[in-house]
Amino acid sequence: MIYFVTGNKGKFVEARAIIDDLEQRNIGYTEVQADSLEEVATFGIAEVMRKLASPAIIEDAGLFIDHLQGFPGVYSAYVFDTIGNQGILKLMAGVENRRAVFRSVVCYGEPGMEPRFFRGEMEGRIGYAPRGEGGFGYDPIFEVEERTLGEMSLEEKNRISHRARSMMALKEWLDLGRP
Amino acid sequence: MIYFVTGNKGKFVEARAIIDDLEQRNIGYTEVQADSLEEVATFGIAEVMRKLASPAIIEDAGLFIDHLQGFPGVYSAYVFDTIGNQGILKLMAGVENRRAVFRSVVCYGEPGMEPRFFRGEMEGRIGYAPRGEGGFGYDPIFEVEERTLGEMSLEEKNRISHRARSMMALKEWLDLGRP
Repeated sequence: MIYFVTGNKGKFVEARAIIDDLEQRNIGYTEVQADSLEEVATFGIAEVMRKLASPAIIEDAGLFIDHLQGFPGVYSAYVFDTIGNQGILKLMAGVENRRAVFRSVVCYGEPGMEPRFFRGEMEGRIGYAPRGEGGFGYDPIFEVEERTLGEMSLEEKNRISHRARSMMALKEWLDLGRP
Repeated sequence: MIYFVTGNKGKFVEARAIIDDLEQRNIGYTEVQADSLEEVATFGIAEVMRKLASPAIIEDAGLFIDHLQGFPGVYSAYVFDTIGNQGILKLMAGVENRRAVFRSVVCYGEPGMEPRFFRGEMEGRIGYAPRGEGGFGYDPIFEVEERTLGEMSLEEKNRISHRARSMMALKEWLDLGRP
């Protein structure tokens, strides 16, 4: 059994659909200001190991927009809460290169072991206006092959999402007996 | 003697002009993702106390724009490095309420004492285009009474700056014998 340390029930449900042997623990951990998701996770998992001393994962994700030097990146949650999708669309007004990527990093820890990272990505484009009622956060402005994530069903989104991919990578490694 | 833990020589020089008894130490500390400068400083000073065990200060600052719900706030440095002043101006295009405030928080710690906070603010407005060659960061787009910080001399800026004010508040408290 592996603990998934998160306060986000939606994240847990998504991960649990891929990895059976998961249990949610909402004990929190410190998120540091850092340039990469990996740095944030490295710091976080060390804190979780001190608290739990048993196998556990944490997950961090962000939206990285090419033209904006990776902004909002590791601070995607804060940026969404302040300038939101309207702010992102304003920053992208008149910009031709609309390439963006959602990245997810899962960090697995167990006592006495170096943490392991599992990554997932989903490439897409920033749209010109919000579309769709599904999903949350940046979903209505993130397009994959002409449709936004907000226009997809949860099942569809979960088949291609960055988080599904990082969790799949973790699952493969677990199924191989943690080589 | 008080250590000022910072890697920023400019900040140190500015503070040293106000408080004689200061010595720069560039030992670094973890900056957490948090909603307020105070939270970032609380976490930071605890780490500094574990390392130094002697009187020390750290300082954190940010630009808070009214219309953008306080963005870029505690993440001002990251936002400047990614979308920069052009990004801020784009976000503020067509916006009438241009009110913004620079905030500085100095956190003083010494062994066995609760940390103390000293705050400084500078109110102003976001301009419509960068002006002036002085200063750094957001200075060319931050206006105080018609001029941007980039158009002021360093002496002028230091007379009114948020950081000068938080350092002055600390100095008063020190001069009163830390009541």
